[in-house]
Amino acid sequence: MTASSSAPSSADDAAAVLAAARRAKDAATSLATATRRVKDAALYAIADALVAREGEILRANADDVARVERSGATAAFIDRLRLDADRLAAIARDARKVAGLPDPVGEIVRGGVLPNGLELRQIRVPLGVVGIIYEGRPNVTVDAASLCLKSGNAVLLRGSSSAASSNAALVDVIRGALAGTELPVDAVQLVPGTGHDAAKHLTRARGLVDVLIPRGGAGLIRSVVEESTVPVIETGVGNCHVYVDADADLDQALTVLLNAKTSRPSVCNAAETMLVHAAVADTFLPRALAALREAGVTVHGDARVAAYDPAVVPATDEDWDREYLSLDIAAAVVDSLDDAIAHIRTHGTGHSEAIITRSQAAARRFVAEVDAAAVLVNASTRFVDGGEFGFGAEIGISTQKLHARGPMALPELTSTKWVVVGDGHVR
Amino acid sequence: MTASSSAPSSADDAAAVLAAARRAKDAATSLATATRRVKDAALYAIADALVAREGEILRANADDVARVERSGATAAFIDRLRLDADRLAAIARDARKVAGLPDPVGEIVRGGVLPNGLELRQIRVPLGVVGIIYEGRPNVTVDAASLCLKSGNAVLLRGSSSAASSNAALVDVIRGALAGTELPVDAVQLVPGTGHDAAKHLTRARGLVDVLIPRGGAGLIRSVVEESTVPVIETGVGNCHVYVDADADLDQALTVLLNAKTSRPSVCNAAETMLVHAAVADTFLPRALAALREAGVTVHGDARVAAYDPAVVPATDEDWDREYLSLDIAAAVVDSLDDAIAHIRTHGTGHSEAIITRSQAAARRFVAEVDAAAVLVNASTRFVDGGEFGFGAEIGISTQKLHARGPMALPELTSTKWVVVGDGHVR
Repeated sequence: MTASSSAPSSADDAAAVLAAARRAKDAATSLATATRRVKDAALYAIADALVAREGEILRANADDVARVERSGATAAFIDRLRLDADRLAAIARDARKVAGLPDPVGEIVRGGVLPNGLELRQIRVPLGVVGIIYEGRPNVTVDAASLCLKSGNAVLLRGSSSAASSNAALVDVIRGALAGTELPVDAVQLVPGTGHDAAKHLTRARGLVDVLIPRGGAGLIRSVVEESTVPVIETGVGNCHVYVDADADLDQALTVLLNAKTSRPSVCNAAETMLVHAAVADTFLPRALAALREAGVTVHGDARVAAYDPAVVPATDEDWDREYLSLDIAAAVVDSLDDAIAHIRTHGTGHSEAIITRSQAAARRFVAEVDAAAVLVNASTRFVDGGEFGFGAEIGISTQKLHARGPMALPELTSTKWVVVGDGHVR
Repeated sequence: MTASSSAPSSADDAAAVLAAARRAKDAATSLATATRRVKDAALYAIADALVAREGEILRANADDVARVERSGATAAFIDRLRLDADRLAAIARDARKVAGLPDPVGEIVRGGVLPNGLELRQIRVPLGVVGIIYEGRPNVTVDAASLCLKSGNAVLLRGSSSAASSNAALVDVIRGALAGTELPVDAVQLVPGTGHDAAKHLTRARGLVDVLIPRGGAGLIRSVVEESTVPVIETGVGNCHVYVDADADLDQALTVLLNAKTSRPSVCNAAETMLVHAAVADTFLPRALAALREAGVTVHGDARVAAYDPAVVPATDEDWDREYLSLDIAAAVVDSLDDAIAHIRTHGTGHSEAIITRSQAAARRFVAEVDAAAVLVNASTRFVDGGEFGFGAEIGISTQKLHARGPMALPELTSTKWVVVGDGHVR
């Protein structure tokens, strides 16, 4: 293809993305005032349709899986992409669960009466149009649609090309279900066009799209942040640390460390680095290194850690910054709580950081001085999750400081509006 | 100057801005754990120093004023730039007032105990480093520094070149005062370098600066939003409407309209467009047009408005989108509440929108369907202000939906952190 023929195609893509965003904005207007009853009915209709149209969804997914298998993708990648009847039923159940959650819209956040008699209320309202840019997990398509609909937002979904057929089928089912409800069909749309350009056009749709949430690897998130003039909520990259303090209960430390590293290594709240205070290194590290080895974990240690176990792989400078997402962990001995905090400040990604200690003073300092979405005392980093926090759902974990920080659920998909009621009041 | 000589100068500027941002980030670390007692002491020290060093501040300001006068600036521009002893005393009083406000840091936003016994608290923490990009109003220099210090943030100030000497003197006084306190001097810095480039480097300091708040005209705000990879909070542009409903109390309508337009035309919460329901046009418009004329207001009306008064200037398409910030108002007759809402949806900037009505149903629909930071019923748009809302201070009025919407005060200069405390809890 020549440059002259690709230019108009990109312009067409841009026009198609903007047209979809305009339809989403129109849909958002009626969604904003939809009652909970109407929104929940739509979610139940979607759940029913996902089950009723299982055959076509699974056929479309099989096409994606076959194509990706031919391209030589990893087993883990294919596993995230694959749907079966059980997984689809679980996705439908999740949509019903979102219907059961309280409606965030209309909630009064603050309010009262001013000295001059003006009534003032700050109420939750939908954001408007939410764009989700994500990788090859078809369950995100339904999750994101459910959460956005429940919070009164229209959603523009930009999935991975690896899941193109699955997403097309799922969104067709969702829109088919919406057609039988009082909500506008264009409340849920796939972003048209192909490849990186379609996502790029979405990042430039300022004024039509209210927020973009990239879900995926660090590269995807960085490129969205760099390109976007639409506000972005960064999610997910987690180089999480477990720090075993001089005053730690070492049994607790070992239990928490193993849980944080091995209970689900592929997720962002898994531990990626352990820091051990020098005062307990002699007693803790031999036990910990043996237990980690037994659990199949490769330890990338500094020289002081390596001295305890010849199986330790010498850590390079890169190891302190790596989000392994695998059965690997970086490990260092630190001489003080200060050094542990300084290490986390340098290498952490602001996701979840844990201290194991019996010392009230150490816990207090760690909580105050470590700058992260979540800081944990004597608990596994794996708890940092919307479901575990009792939110009932999660659209991602924000690692930025603006708007939302930590697990994001329905309230985080809203903005607010001030309502001021008077009786001819002037200033 | 040739291109080859300007390139290194820009690189030097960039390095200087990044170095300042790094110092700010270091300062933010100790600010984050500073107690209210320490922060308030610093604010009182700053207020005292502003009064004690009045002479040098006013001399620096006189230099700015003389230079700007020679360049032929408007009287309004010069008035915003000019300081005198009274104005400086008022600025110092405002810093003391901020000291008297509650500390937002540490406030527990949500909290409780999970079913598994984990204690969960969401607490307010500082954002970190806040960048303020603003135009030629030296009072903003002190206001922004006070609010950022009180909320535990370091601040990078990028003022206008027109106020360069004033800002340099003010920041020198502030830093001098900080040197005698427990807070780091680099908590308050002027962004080094000159011209547009210095602001631009600030917009690229991702990872060092946590949020940028542009305060000023639409052009400044748009350029910051377009260039920035740092999260931005948009402020200020207000094309605010007053809609006089078919069921309005017309005396109230006239009082509110005049207040919204004329009490301070140069500010963002002043009314810029009035919409009048056709059913009351015959009774309301002759009175309103006469009263506006008497108040010195030029009305830019559509044909139906112009029919009532030959002094009405025919409105062009641009008038519906203009933020006059002067004694001008656009005016149109609408045939329904729907038409009024549609007009506001097309032309509003999401700042403050008012309806005047006795109808509960009309008020309810207007509040629900108009998408703005503030919607007012039977009250002047001029009330949308941090001071009027009882916040004690204001760093700007956000017209975006993420993080903060409407008047922003101390809580809006914070983020949150989840604190999770267990006893060896694993998942």
